Amino acid sequence: MTTRYEQFKAFRENLNTRILGDGDARGTHPDGSTKPGATLVTKRFFGLDTKAYDQGALPARTKEMLGLSASMVLRCDDCIAYHIDQCVELGASDEELFEVFDIALIVGGSIVIPHLRRAVEFLDECRARKMNPQADA
Amino acid sequence: MTTRYEQFKAFRENLNTRILGDGDARGTHPDGSTKPGATLVTKRFFGLDTKAYDQGALPARTKEMLGLSASMVLRCDDCIAYHIDQCVELGASDEELFEVFDIALIVGGSIVIPHLRRAVEFLDECRARKMNPQADA
Amino acid sequence: MTTRYEQFKAFRENLNTRILGDGDARGTHPDGSTKPGATLVTKRFFGLDTKAYDQGALPARTKEMLGLSASMVLRCDDCIAYHIDQCVELGASDEELFEVFDIALIVGGSIVIPHLRRAVEFLDECRARKMNPQADA
Amino acid sequence: MTTRYEQFKAFRENLNTRILGDGDARGTHPDGSTKPGATLVTKRFFGLDTKAYDQGALPARTKEMLGLSASMVLRCDDCIAYHIDQCVELGASDEELFEVFDIALIVGGSIVIPHLRRAVEFLDECRARKMNPQADA
Amino acid sequence: MTTRYEQFKAFRENLNTRILGDGDARGTHPDGSTKPGATLVTKRFFGLDTKAYDQGALPARTKEMLGLSASMVLRCDDCIAYHIDQCVELGASDEELFEVFDIALIVGGSIVIPHLRRAVEFLDECRARKMNPQADA
Amino acid sequence: MTTRYEQFKAFRENLNTRILGDGDARGTHPDGSTKPGATLVTKRFFGLDTKAYDQGALPARTKEMLGLSASMVLRCDDCIAYHIDQCVELGASDEELFEVFDIALIVGGSIVIPHLRRAVEFLDECRARKMNPQADA
Repeated sequence: MTTRYEQFKAFRENLNTRILGDGDARGTHPDGSTKPGATLVTKRFFGLDTKAYDQGALPARTKEMLGLSASMVLRCDDCIAYHIDQCVELGASDEELFEVFDIALIVGGSIVIPHLRRAVEFLDECRARKMNPQADA
Repeated sequence: MTTRYEQFKAFRENLNTRILGDGDARGTHPDGSTKPGATLVTKRFFGLDTKAYDQGALPARTKEMLGLSASMVLRCDDCIAYHIDQCVELGASDEELFEVFDIALIVGGSIVIPHLRRAVEFLDECRARKMNPQADA
Repeated sequence: MTTRYEQFKAFRENLNTRILGDGDARGTHPDGSTKPGATLVTKRFFGLDTKAYDQGALPARTKEMLGLSASMVLRCDDCIAYHIDQCVELGASDEELFEVFDIALIVGGSIVIPHLRRAVEFLDECRARKMNPQADA
Repeated sequence: MTTRYEQFKAFRENLNTRILGDGDARGTHPDGSTKPGATLVTKRFFGLDTKAYDQGALPARTKEMLGLSASMVLRCDDCIAYHIDQCVELGASDEELFEVFDIALIVGGSIVIPHLRRAVEFLDECRARKMNPQADA
Repeated sequence: MTTRYEQFKAFRENLNTRILGDGDARGTHPDGSTKPGATLVTKRFFGLDTKAYDQGALPARTKEMLGLSASMVLRCDDCIAYHIDQCVELGASDEELFEVFDIALIVGGSIVIPHLRRAVEFLDECRARKMNPQADA
Repeated sequence: MTTRYEQFKAFRENLNTRILGDGDARGTHPDGSTKPGATLVTKRFFGLDTKAYDQGALPARTKEMLGLSASMVLRCDDCIAYHIDQCVELGASDEELFEVFDIALIVGGSIVIPHLRRAVEFLDECRARKMNPQADA
């Protein structure tokens, strides 16, 4: 069975290739024509989006938490999942992440709660995967 | 087959236990450690969220309609489903609920329409369950 | 000195005339041409917006509270002021309105607080005007 | 297998009939009573929503792009799918649509990206259907 | 007297210099230290934001209308003013702009109305300035 | 002349007293009746809002940055000003704050830019006040 984590990763990777990839990687329409990809503006935006989280005056982990807090109040499950995954990779503890959830919940209100539930479920799955790394094989 | 109503109720209950429950109820990670739960801030917020809908100068039913109107313009399907369920429990008629939908649609615009469709589908399911209470057995 | 209440009312009336009014009422550009007004779609939308708050299965006062709750979580000060004014006209008490504020605050979170402050200030001004109706003269 | 395009179209049509249709079309509750439909306000809003995209000073295609840009920054997948379908029907090219995506991405930020991915997937499906019209049979 | 148009332009220019400018242009703190400016990420984002509206498969005027529609439903008065100014510069007629307002109003709902009022007021000021260009002198 | 910083602080303090204060502090209506204050729900929410930013697993300064990032993407100038003031009090550098602005800008898009301008203007005023503490006298 495919977990939410795996579905999320696979869809994200496939569509990023479709949007950002070169001609062959983007695939073809049924009539054989190559699918057009994103403009230079979109490609550069994706690049900036990655660069913004690089370590600078603030550590990368703090920046991912800032992205998580922003994504929670804007209520985007995929963005929340992405930043939780990054925070876990960069060593954030559950206690720290639950405090990020606090801030998002207080700033954003009860409308954040359904996203908080899915965030906690996703966080548990990230932890389980780190404890069973062979799950990636 | 599990209906949307049942899925919604079960997910909500499981994750609330995971977030708000005591150690044993929260479950364990694959390495045997107990999953950390929410902070006191989050727990208190959930308590306040319940308390806000208690009867006061306004009846509980009116408050649930206010929560429904707010949830519709913020476009959160789970919150909409929750408040519809509460409104039905507290005796709101379909005619009253369609007038709540009016206000949400006019204030929030056509972007609310997809949520309105799912709201009506969920409302019909709530009504069907009340007419067939054995469905809960 | 012009109060916020008076500024709000005057600006709203002037611009509604500019947008919805007939040719002469809309005024002219410096070159003497009549300013174009809104389309039929916009005019009909303004009409629907008024109609949605008419008494139906729900009393007009409840509908104005629903519009207030929606406006607070969407954080539009002018919309909040408009619905507070209507609620006061329709006999809502401060105790009732503070319970509408509760729901908006819990659903929408701390980001609603600055709007809550301005809402309370505006509500106090509405009350003061009702106690001093000659202020309108 | 049902594609996302077909699911989207079928759900939209069924619920629009439920909301806007006459008594018989709306169906009955388990107790035999006819399901109440939407109010006149909601019905008129749906009518206005259609009328707003009619050709006027701006071509219908441009208006659908305006609706697409607005739907992307408000992040409603169903609205995005609807306007992409309309843009394709009205002859918009992929190059034009990727420039609409640019504006939405720059105005709305990275929170738009998950919706952009689903938009591109849906656009590819629309193109494939136009090249295989028998798929509708 | 300074008009809203002039205030908007002057504030925008001053702060852009503060954020994007070189050391001397950014000014100094009271203790004599040079004010730090934006990071490379922010500077590049401002560059992309300009580039996104360049003519491409879509004319620049259509792109500005797309930005206007997005800004109206997100309800940012400064962004609305900016795109109206650009649309007027690029030759958009009032009739076209009122149709952009239609789409924004229908998609975004009555919460857009206060921004629509300020948009129309700003549009009239832009038109007046174009008819009295010496007003810039 | 009153600066934006002083206006913001004074309005916030006055209205918090009006909302949260005891009877005498809340003031009276023109007819001599004491103005009703907020409900217990609102008062407790204000308390939780303060408590959420206390040092825990995360330092208070990081939490204020999380609140700032969330406030910027939700585009509330007063909330942004509040968190900038707190960040400066807790020793955040301009370089760190400009990186918080980066994340907010990338996540939230160009619609954040007008708020970024006002944020930078407010930050400069906070710095100037810290260098001229007698300005508070």
